[in-house]
Amino acid sequence: MKLSEIPTPALLIDVPAMQRNIERMAEFFAEGQCRLRPHFKAHKTPEIARRQLAAGSCSGLTCATVDEAEVIAAEGLTDDVLIANQVVGPGKAIRVAKLAASADFDIKVAVDSEAGLADLAQAAQDAGVEIGVVVDVNVGLPRCGIAHGEPALALARKVEATEGVTLRGLMGYEGHVVAIEDRAEREARTAKAMSRLLETAQLLREDGLPCDIVSAGGTGTYDITGRMEGITEIQAGSYVLMDSAYAKLDIPFEQAFSVLGTVLSRPRPELCAADNGHKACSQDHGNPDVKGVDGASVLFLSDEHATIALPPESAIAVGDRIELWPSHIDPTINLHDVLYAIEGVEVAGVWPISARGYAEQRKSGRDS
Amino acid sequence: MKLSEIPTPALLIDVPAMQRNIERMAEFFAEGQCRLRPHFKAHKTPEIARRQLAAGSCSGLTCATVDEAEVIAAEGLTDDVLIANQVVGPGKAIRVAKLAASADFDIKVAVDSEAGLADLAQAAQDAGVEIGVVVDVNVGLPRCGIAHGEPALALARKVEATEGVTLRGLMGYEGHVVAIEDRAEREARTAKAMSRLLETAQLLREDGLPCDIVSAGGTGTYDITGRMEGITEIQAGSYVLMDSAYAKLDIPFEQAFSVLGTVLSRPRPELCAADNGHKACSQDHGNPDVKGVDGASVLFLSDEHATIALPPESAIAVGDRIELWPSHIDPTINLHDVLYAIEGVEVAGVWPISARGYAEQRKSGRDS
Repeated sequence: MKLSEIPTPALLIDVPAMQRNIERMAEFFAEGQCRLRPHFKAHKTPEIARRQLAAGSCSGLTCATVDEAEVIAAEGLTDDVLIANQVVGPGKAIRVAKLAASADFDIKVAVDSEAGLADLAQAAQDAGVEIGVVVDVNVGLPRCGIAHGEPALALARKVEATEGVTLRGLMGYEGHVVAIEDRAEREARTAKAMSRLLETAQLLREDGLPCDIVSAGGTGTYDITGRMEGITEIQAGSYVLMDSAYAKLDIPFEQAFSVLGTVLSRPRPELCAADNGHKACSQDHGNPDVKGVDGASVLFLSDEHATIALPPESAIAVGDRIELWPSHIDPTINLHDVLYAIEGVEVAGVWPISARGYAEQRKSGRDS
Repeated sequence: MKLSEIPTPALLIDVPAMQRNIERMAEFFAEGQCRLRPHFKAHKTPEIARRQLAAGSCSGLTCATVDEAEVIAAEGLTDDVLIANQVVGPGKAIRVAKLAASADFDIKVAVDSEAGLADLAQAAQDAGVEIGVVVDVNVGLPRCGIAHGEPALALARKVEATEGVTLRGLMGYEGHVVAIEDRAEREARTAKAMSRLLETAQLLREDGLPCDIVSAGGTGTYDITGRMEGITEIQAGSYVLMDSAYAKLDIPFEQAFSVLGTVLSRPRPELCAADNGHKACSQDHGNPDVKGVDGASVLFLSDEHATIALPPESAIAVGDRIELWPSHIDPTINLHDVLYAIEGVEVAGVWPISARGYAEQRKSGRDS
């Protein structure tokens, strides 16, 4: 298959650029104590995870959902998984216990409440397994995470005292600072956020509690948090393909994916409409950029259309291809079922996005 | 299965409310010359389309993509389909010709350029079939559509003179006015938009060209455009389930769907984090509303989380369910594989969203 034959809209991966990103990140973590734990949520694609792990410097994979952990297990990507998110809701903890029951699958789950801990411990006890736990510490992002210091220490003690779960350490995601463009400010605010996590780790150790894992970081802070004494691994995901939001930072990763569209209409010289709208390209971090067309910019996305402002003299015509560079990788990839892996003008592979959507919904959809 | 057993995040349909919406719309079009052609793009779900068609007053279904038309055909929903969008790009016109080749499948496609027409006609000639065409007239939305008046007339003449395609009439979507909250302004601007379409229809008739179809309208203008002399059908979609954007208008349709989530964390009295983030709930028309929790509002959505502001005295706890009401139905449904049809506290059905995503990608994903 050739690039020109791909039905649109579709996601393209520039394989050599992706491979360079993977190697650059692996090289960075080849030195020092800290490891990389690539975040599977970003792309949900086994073929990409395999390449990340093959490049080395990895402690395993991070994921955000039980669904993703199940795909990682089913595909045999790694035996070391961290669900860097709370596991709560009907059936979820039981599914984690099933994963923990398979030999040599070392699964760890973030916990930030006694209720969440109780649910997980019950499932582990019922299944006769041990589930690893990292206490999720709030480091400033108003989302999940127990308060740092004494509250986190108290929860860690509770984990240590509970049957069926094994305390492995801490995590804290500095999501509120990863996208700050100014490096000095990003460094200062990352240091403040991470001091909460590192001080809590110190409290655990002084209390005689295990704290082998101190997991944090993202693509925007990998070389800040990843060089801090006491941080054991970085949960970066976006670096592998990059998006236009992260491209504003001074980090050495290349644009390696785009949303291919076909121009449907050029109703006026100053605009065209292509078929890569927001059902194909997320806009939660803003409009995508137009790739490789001088002076072109997205006016707005609708469900099935990208309306693009053009210089009136542009030669863009109905049937031409147009690539958008999304502002956010994770939700864009989640809109598609496959990635088209491009080398030159050839489609070198069609990679299933195996963890797109929701496992139980995919199953229900197939069964009905 | 009970509502309480549904794994989250998940889409819930309030079946009685949906049924009332369907019946109200069918009743409106039971009188007068204009018919309803419900837009399949809104929900992509055969079970909902069956109910819309069963309620009567319909000329067939509207859809936005060849994929959707193929699902409509495969499911046998109706034999009268309008693809209210340009069909351009590798393989697309050939797929339409295949649909046209099946006996009793009356398919019509929007065309707004000679290039698009040539592609469609070639595929029809190669397959030895006739494909219906409506000329897509720009009525003010800066997207697709040829200019009204003489340019549209010239394209209609070209369609009439081209082998393999049959001119059926016109369409024009007033998407730039459907969401105007003030009724007087919405009526005035709809009248202006539709005058472009109706004047063009008059030109076609004066020229002796066929113009049986004059298709337009949406949920926000169904009772304005749908009462205009000369409009033959309305392409409304959102009315069936409604979203918070359309709920701001004075139209008699009820909220009939929501995104169910589970509370993962209540780290502080003034907020909680649930698992219905923007991979489960589109935010292109703004943040969703929180349903049924006094004083609660969405602070922000991230990939796997909704961070929700709560009154500090709220009893919301880890493990509780929380429903979000999306601002935009179409892209939210496109994130899921099934709808859970709820009657009371029971799951009355699990309905596949058969046209979610992209047909050729689903096929590639399965084959690899």
